[in-house]
Amino acid sequence: MQYSLEVRIELKKGVIDAEGETVKKTLNLLGYEVEGVNTVSVYVIRLSAESEEEAMEKMDEAARRLLANPVIQNYSISAVK
Amino acid sequence: MQYSLEVRIELKKGVIDAEGETVKKTLNLLGYEVEGVNTVSVYVIRLSAESEEEAMEKMDEAARRLLANPVIQNYSISAVK
Repeated sequence: MQYSLEVRIELKKGVIDAEGETVKKTLNLLGYEVEGVNTVSVYVIRLSAESEEEAMEKMDEAARRLLANPVIQNYSISAVK
Repeated sequence: MQYSLEVRIELKKGVIDAEGETVKKTLNLLGYEVEGVNTVSVYVIRLSAESEEEAMEKMDEAARRLLANPVIQNYSISAVK
């Protein structure tokens, strides 16, 4: 069966989010009173697997190996219905 | 009150997702039978407003003005609880 999973990658606490900082400053310059901006990268992945569990396990491994940098990023995986 | 909103920016249908294509090819090379990958950018924005509705309206305007490119991207906004 085909499954659709979402891998969500965020910077760990304490890691400077340069893009988020820039967006915040620009929004402030445009007059929006924004207090903070964090950027998150999401990959929506379609794959075939025997079960949702298997699909999640595969993509958990893939996230560790390829998608996220474990030194500075956290990731989470969820199924898209 | 302070609100936390999530602005989610996706490419419109028909727009080539180069990053997604690259991730898909690399996952295939690593042996994962992935059929498609789409990338999504998310900005988690904290701001003060009178109501959640006002916060959403402000960020809807900001998304149109700054965060999304309406020619190639769609965006959606949701409140983070």
